[in-house]
Amino acid sequence: MNVTVNGRTRSYRSVTFDAKRNAVWLIDQRLLPHQFKLVTTTDYRQTTEAIRTMVVRGAPAIAAAAAYGLVQGARAFQGTSLRQFSHHVQRVYEVLKGARPTAVDPVNAMDRVLTIMRRGKTVPEQQSLALAAAEELVHATITQCQAIGKHGARLIHNGSRILTHCNAGWLACVDVGTATAPLYAAQSQGKRFHVFCAETRPRCQGAMLTAWELAQQGISHQVVADTAVGLLFARGQIDLVLVGADRVVCRTGGIANKIGTYTCAVLARHHRVPFYVAVPLTTLDWKLRSERDIPIEERDPAEVLGAWGLPIQPEARRPTPKAIEPVYVRVANPTSQALNPAFDVTPPGLITGFITPQGIFKPGELRGQRTRLLLESS
Amino acid sequence: MNVTVNGRTRSYRSVTFDAKRNAVWLIDQRLLPHQFKLVTTTDYRQTTEAIRTMVVRGAPAIAAAAAYGLVQGARAFQGTSLRQFSHHVQRVYEVLKGARPTAVDPVNAMDRVLTIMRRGKTVPEQQSLALAAAEELVHATITQCQAIGKHGARLIHNGSRILTHCNAGWLACVDVGTATAPLYAAQSQGKRFHVFCAETRPRCQGAMLTAWELAQQGISHQVVADTAVGLLFARGQIDLVLVGADRVVCRTGGIANKIGTYTCAVLARHHRVPFYVAVPLTTLDWKLRSERDIPIEERDPAEVLGAWGLPIQPEARRPTPKAIEPVYVRVANPTSQALNPAFDVTPPGLITGFITPQGIFKPGELRGQRTRLLLESS
Repeated sequence: MNVTVNGRTRSYRSVTFDAKRNAVWLIDQRLLPHQFKLVTTTDYRQTTEAIRTMVVRGAPAIAAAAAYGLVQGARAFQGTSLRQFSHHVQRVYEVLKGARPTAVDPVNAMDRVLTIMRRGKTVPEQQSLALAAAEELVHATITQCQAIGKHGARLIHNGSRILTHCNAGWLACVDVGTATAPLYAAQSQGKRFHVFCAETRPRCQGAMLTAWELAQQGISHQVVADTAVGLLFARGQIDLVLVGADRVVCRTGGIANKIGTYTCAVLARHHRVPFYVAVPLTTLDWKLRSERDIPIEERDPAEVLGAWGLPIQPEARRPTPKAIEPVYVRVANPTSQALNPAFDVTPPGLITGFITPQGIFKPGELRGQRTRLLLESS
Repeated sequence: MNVTVNGRTRSYRSVTFDAKRNAVWLIDQRLLPHQFKLVTTTDYRQTTEAIRTMVVRGAPAIAAAAAYGLVQGARAFQGTSLRQFSHHVQRVYEVLKGARPTAVDPVNAMDRVLTIMRRGKTVPEQQSLALAAAEELVHATITQCQAIGKHGARLIHNGSRILTHCNAGWLACVDVGTATAPLYAAQSQGKRFHVFCAETRPRCQGAMLTAWELAQQGISHQVVADTAVGLLFARGQIDLVLVGADRVVCRTGGIANKIGTYTCAVLARHHRVPFYVAVPLTTLDWKLRSERDIPIEERDPAEVLGAWGLPIQPEARRPTPKAIEPVYVRVANPTSQALNPAFDVTPPGLITGFITPQGIFKPGELRGQRTRLLLESS
């Protein structure tokens, strides 16, 4: 997507591979929205570190970074022995896998690269097959997001007022994004609409990342506190809710997504506003019996007890150059504890439909569409 | 209520009058929860300034501060001419009235003091009647809160899990509080229960003030992000919702309260959890036709785009002495706008009942109880 820095607009992906320099380029998402900075890693260990420290975040984006990291490691090998090469690649794989131990997407992506790579008969052949496989994988990710955009844009009309929660945007997906894809597609069709970004406490991905993305693309939007969402519904100011998902349970049509999604879904149902979930095929879980079986991760209470931001004057529109580093501030009473569940679960009864690369489906329809919706690689 | 500072426990009110020194004592609420500090004003102009700069906040508390400020100004008069005294008091009244021009409670409280004061035949007589009237008014406020506590405590049982939103606590009400009164009463009856304090963005009165109050009284509680409230309901972890109100429309039984109250009410209804509103008689509006006629104040977008807190390490439990001053940090994308409605409206259909000093009433019952619920002074 386009990003304008110092008045100059260029097209970026959140993760790219520079084959000539065997380097991975990443947008440093820890600095957004306050600073736009690219990071280069020239060694797979650096790439691992970037994944671990969340320079790059979002399941499809860390999958791409891990796949590129594996390729980077494989291409750094200089011998000719396939056995030694295989050992080396296995070591690279294990190191990258350890960067975010609970994430499944990087492992799936690296497994795919390994499977295709092993068809090569020499080290150089395997190295170039690995690169081709990683590029194909990233291409497929972006193509899926574009297809989500095409299908989802049908739901957006001139004058639509759309609520989003958290960030399922292009930063998290290499390019285009999932929940944001219909917005970008509708914009390119010349439609005019307005987006409310729920700030999404405690990490505020809505206020920080979705708002930054929409501002960069020139889409009309406003940040609102999560507490204000109910009033917007009550006033009839929301026509459509668009969110992503961390996992879709295809057997039931329920989802797990960022904490607060369920509240938006209950409010949408109470006010008879359609609630759509945009997802790539990698998010569909065909094994789990029920969304109630999804374990809810508890995160650091410090997130709820405080906030991260730039220390500036409240009325300032731009940070002063000195204050470019975000700091943590403790907001809550220092002797109180907090509960910080990272996700919640939305049952199928509250979901109007799923926007997938293969079209829009009702929660009850997913199960019957397994053949169409299964990933080629599965 | 009791406050423990540096290991020493003493009983405090958020506003008190020291007749001997003709001084008003205030807990500086701007510094809480990070610092507990008392402020003394020895002149009505200083008291006005303290109200204006929100050293003291909350309708009953600023009413008490204004009443005491008027008494303070009246008692500073040293002549014997009733005409000159009356002019002087009128000037004091106007200055105090201007401190928070949209608040109605300070004006009502000062009018009450003036009415009683004027029964006096000499300056000293009027001065002492004014003091008695102000003390009577504050006494009535506290008595009402205690009565709310007595009635509301019946709703709390051993093991109850209670959700609160914002702060309708003793800081805002001189003592005891409204939505917190049933908690303190239930505690004094030996009941054991747990309170979830919704942080209440953007000003975080739940995380900052309610959590501080409950910690001071030793009541089991946890702060949660506003986004986590839906999950708590879905898991069956909330048995009762207790909130205050800025205004109750007695004709319909609807309310206006801090932004986010409506969302709690919709979630409570969806999960069939009782939703109670605790209010003193001063909050009952007998004139307004419908809660839909209440204008919703829009506040500074900077509140939504950032947060105020102490710059400390996230893992720190106590601020370092150097970092005692809260600072503002900008969280959101700096080129985005925000919408910041301060209140929302909850219709009677979502309210289980009102906890008043005169007992608990259903929304539809308020209208018929006018005689019982009208303030004596009205």
